[in-house]
Amino acid sequence: MSEIKGQARVIIENVQPQVDGGHYPAKFTTGEYVRVTADIFGDGHDHLRAQVLYKHEKNESWSTLELKHQSNDNWAAVFQVAEKGYYLFTIRAWVDHLETWHDGFKKKAEAALDLHVELMEGAALLKKIGKGDPYFQSMAATLSDTNLYRDAVDKVLSPAFRKIVHEHPLIEHEALYERELKLVVESKKANFSAWYELFPRSASLDGRHGTFRDVIRLLPRVSAMGFDVLYLPPIHPIGKINRKGKNNNVRAEPGEPGSPWAIGSDEGGHKAINPELGSTADFKKLIAEARKLDIDIAMDIAFQCAPDHPYVKEHPQWFRQRPDGSIQYAENPPKKYQDIYPFNFESEDWKSLWEELRSVFEFWIDLGVKIFRVDNPHTKPIMFWQWVIAEINRKHEDIILLSEAFTRPKIMASLAKVGFTQSYTYFTWRVTKEEITEYMNELVHSPSRFYFRPNFWPNTPDILPFHLQHQGENIFIIRLALAMTLSSSYGIYGPPYEFNHNLPVPGREEYLDSEKYEIKIHDWKGTNRMTDIITILNRARKQHPALQSTWNLQFCNIHQPNLLAYIKATHDLSDIFLVVVNLDPNQRHSGYVELPKERLRIRDHVNVKIHDLMTDEHYTWTQDWNYVELDPYKMPFHLFRLEIRESNL
Amino acid sequence: MSEIKGQARVIIENVQPQVDGGHYPAKFTTGEYVRVTADIFGDGHDHLRAQVLYKHEKNESWSTLELKHQSNDNWAAVFQVAEKGYYLFTIRAWVDHLETWHDGFKKKAEAALDLHVELMEGAALLKKIGKGDPYFQSMAATLSDTNLYRDAVDKVLSPAFRKIVHEHPLIEHEALYERELKLVVESKKANFSAWYELFPRSASLDGRHGTFRDVIRLLPRVSAMGFDVLYLPPIHPIGKINRKGKNNNVRAEPGEPGSPWAIGSDEGGHKAINPELGSTADFKKLIAEARKLDIDIAMDIAFQCAPDHPYVKEHPQWFRQRPDGSIQYAENPPKKYQDIYPFNFESEDWKSLWEELRSVFEFWIDLGVKIFRVDNPHTKPIMFWQWVIAEINRKHEDIILLSEAFTRPKIMASLAKVGFTQSYTYFTWRVTKEEITEYMNELVHSPSRFYFRPNFWPNTPDILPFHLQHQGENIFIIRLALAMTLSSSYGIYGPPYEFNHNLPVPGREEYLDSEKYEIKIHDWKGTNRMTDIITILNRARKQHPALQSTWNLQFCNIHQPNLLAYIKATHDLSDIFLVVVNLDPNQRHSGYVELPKERLRIRDHVNVKIHDLMTDEHYTWTQDWNYVELDPYKMPFHLFRLEIRESNL
Repeated sequence: MSEIKGQARVIIENVQPQVDGGHYPAKFTTGEYVRVTADIFGDGHDHLRAQVLYKHEKNESWSTLELKHQSNDNWAAVFQVAEKGYYLFTIRAWVDHLETWHDGFKKKAEAALDLHVELMEGAALLKKIGKGDPYFQSMAATLSDTNLYRDAVDKVLSPAFRKIVHEHPLIEHEALYERELKLVVESKKANFSAWYELFPRSASLDGRHGTFRDVIRLLPRVSAMGFDVLYLPPIHPIGKINRKGKNNNVRAEPGEPGSPWAIGSDEGGHKAINPELGSTADFKKLIAEARKLDIDIAMDIAFQCAPDHPYVKEHPQWFRQRPDGSIQYAENPPKKYQDIYPFNFESEDWKSLWEELRSVFEFWIDLGVKIFRVDNPHTKPIMFWQWVIAEINRKHEDIILLSEAFTRPKIMASLAKVGFTQSYTYFTWRVTKEEITEYMNELVHSPSRFYFRPNFWPNTPDILPFHLQHQGENIFIIRLALAMTLSSSYGIYGPPYEFNHNLPVPGREEYLDSEKYEIKIHDWKGTNRMTDIITILNRARKQHPALQSTWNLQFCNIHQPNLLAYIKATHDLSDIFLVVVNLDPNQRHSGYVELPKERLRIRDHVNVKIHDLMTDEHYTWTQDWNYVELDPYKMPFHLFRLEIRESNL
Repeated sequence: MSEIKGQARVIIENVQPQVDGGHYPAKFTTGEYVRVTADIFGDGHDHLRAQVLYKHEKNESWSTLELKHQSNDNWAAVFQVAEKGYYLFTIRAWVDHLETWHDGFKKKAEAALDLHVELMEGAALLKKIGKGDPYFQSMAATLSDTNLYRDAVDKVLSPAFRKIVHEHPLIEHEALYERELKLVVESKKANFSAWYELFPRSASLDGRHGTFRDVIRLLPRVSAMGFDVLYLPPIHPIGKINRKGKNNNVRAEPGEPGSPWAIGSDEGGHKAINPELGSTADFKKLIAEARKLDIDIAMDIAFQCAPDHPYVKEHPQWFRQRPDGSIQYAENPPKKYQDIYPFNFESEDWKSLWEELRSVFEFWIDLGVKIFRVDNPHTKPIMFWQWVIAEINRKHEDIILLSEAFTRPKIMASLAKVGFTQSYTYFTWRVTKEEITEYMNELVHSPSRFYFRPNFWPNTPDILPFHLQHQGENIFIIRLALAMTLSSSYGIYGPPYEFNHNLPVPGREEYLDSEKYEIKIHDWKGTNRMTDIITILNRARKQHPALQSTWNLQFCNIHQPNLLAYIKATHDLSDIFLVVVNLDPNQRHSGYVELPKERLRIRDHVNVKIHDLMTDEHYTWTQDWNYVELDPYKMPFHLFRLEIRESNL
């Protein structure tokens, strides 16, 4: 009983944001608003007050912010996180006797009851608050003086007194939430990035094996379209033993380049560069030249080895030995992948394996890499990722790791929780209005909001989804517009997307003649309708904060099954977009879209200026429901910027 | 890194049941089945195995039980809790290399691949499992012997081998869930009880002030109807100062008995008995006589004082002193309740107050009381209840506390979490089919299932709900049948319910001429249609385990808005009820009800014997959808016992 704070009468429960009971920090980026909510209640009918206490972990002192009751005993407060690093927050709450008294006083005054004793009670409470402050002392004196009864009653009932009471809470017997919860705040790019993927070996203009110098020559093109991440598949030496040929042939013909994900040969492993791409100096030059254009180079991290990777000889204990002395290749029985040796994470020597893999990250970070796209993280232990990501973040700032896990939802969630900055998603296969709406609501409104940052890819070198196969440009534009406006991070496997490559391996969601196994020639000098649209969209994203968050999404009513409409708006409503997409690539569709007046804080009649950034057309809307029409052969979507006229606020 | 179990590759999350992250124990009663679920997953495609470890806290060793994968990486196992007290449970999981190997072996065999190396691998795994066991050693020898290749392959592919593999899991590098979670198992009555409330002062046959001896004379009547809890409003001396009169008059006329909830006078307080009711010996006799009939006497605990309660003089520091020297009475400004002084739980002397209130429970427990109905617990600090209930349970077994908190949902939930055994509910106001269905699904399927045990009351001395006002017997029967079959615990404020008192204070949900303020004369010798129905229903509840749980409820499809139908069935389906209620007290309604075949594990065609325990009628149903018809003037509900014929299972 001695440790119980028996006089504290308030319960604080269900504090959000928290991930798995505070096991992991909730993720934010600089400038974002954190909405803290909690169930707060006490016994009886006394007035409660509650504050969030929050601070950056490096600070000594706490900031306080009042929580307001919303409904059903749930309270909320919003603060902005400006700095990178960890924030701590908790909640305190207490019974506010002064406010309780003040509220009772008003009701008794309305009922014309005698208030002499109430004034004396008020005086005592004011003295407690004032602690010597002359204002409160004099106010208390007025209340105690029975000669000033009428004056005192009027004072207490005045709006000024009410304000004083509210602004000087009497904090006694406070309840403190049992834990300090953690938020991690990362750089803005962790949640706002535009990725372009290309194979550097296809970067030449003439079909010879491309090099980093060729990639440097492509940088202005990538920058002009507005991308800020250039992601390269693995750049390491490619295994020569069991090398795969064109279209995933089991054996490569002489001269075939192999898959870059079959990492390692006598020329080196995960810390080496394929000499055909260039030197370390060339790579550093690429990073530097890219940075001048505000582009980060993203490395691929694929923790697996070709049979001739140096690790296999140097650390055979990191692989599974078979009873016949061979090393276990990857398999999914009865399929064999004899060009790939997975690491055995159950190795007795796991500690040195973990350390070595950590040093791979360190090696490339030291060369200037800040972004990693991690290949198949779900085939390595989640515990390993938790450890290695913590190690990396302990030493370096602003490292971004994208989890390439196209797997079951709870595994994808777990990887995000343990520290991956961004994640590939199911967007690639969410096509219908219903699918997209449901998936977005899950991403934005479920608890995963606090740890799972989506990165939307309409295609990847591994995936040409069925809906893009044998289709014309329109559907490519639709999927791109969705990716770029629904999610603040997105990426395309660039050349085939720009140039409408739509031929699959029959019956599969894979590219025919995949660039994974051969060098391709792309029309790097060409531009088209797609490149124009990418350029306009990326420019809008850069200029408009409303398009720089995934979390500010709200779907709009529109009673046309092929039309999807949604609002994206900043916290202060200074920047508002309405996106309307025709999901049907072949037919014109029209319908009426409803403006969400409550979200946009529009009182009474609508009076909104509309500017379509795609067509540069201007309108004024004066109705709740407004007509839209989209011909996919012209432009399959509207990117409306909304300006709510003063008179309408 | 040294504390990391780096070779453990399985993640265990979201283990249920747990209440607020393990902060409170999940509640069960003896004989109940605990369904443990968890999200369990690893990296890659290896086979996982998982076990619940559980034990009664007094036991040394753990029982183990295999979890089975359900869907979406969620696993489940069910065990029964037989003993009262605390159980602990946790989960372990691991990659089962033997099963992974066996599965790959089968697939490779089907693809006619060479299996020599696979046999050697299998031999090594078997040796690991066997650890000297001759069976496994000889099996390993067979697998290693290349001369026995064909024989060995056949052995591995045999069903017997598969069984061996499954029954002898190879447990290496296991992951253990981070916490041991707690269950509290209470006596069956904690979840299965039938309450009858009466005012002992109205227990005489002739209108004189009733006594415990009168109550003893009523026990056979209460027992004959099948009740097992007899709940008495407070039996303490009633305050004389500011005593309330008939119909809550501010002043009682001389001779009026006052409200029993205004506790304490010069005759004593919370540990005294109102001398008009009898002596302590009489009260003990009442408890003893009741026990002979398997009835527990439930005491009312109302922690508040009349102005003349001895505490007020002896411990003025436990009350709020006003500046004029008076003691603060209860108020809800501008309303005053001058007959009641609430305790001030913020008193500096709170420790002695808590101790004293604890001693009140102890006092009555020592006299033989095991059940308490706690009045307005939500107006006292939740922390106090958490402490006092833990103290009581530490010293005594089988104490039941019913929380009389008709307040906001999170406060009711919190009181249940901190230890109240049962709770009053919103059932009293859930009247339509939609309301009842939604509320029951919330009680049974939301997380509150693990801490909130409902006790359904169609009426109380404080509440004559609008739907019972000025109504005939039919609606009383409907509400009773719902309470008695939806919830395993229920209660009625008996005499007015039995005898159809339906007159309110106009415009309010209160009884006119409420028994709270006066002595009433009841026809204790009378019986009627209502008493008959109570008797049949209570008998059915006692005889049939399906009616002894709230958690086994499933609603049935019935396309008639006035008809509500639901199944209640035991875990093993040995006892199955179908209840169909006509919610309209005035009209006959009919419709078709669908048997939930999946839940009842009925294959193919229906063939079910039906017995209506209310009318003793028998039918056989052979269709999925079956006709029912209910005339409220005959019997407004069916209480069907179902017997699924052998051929139908």
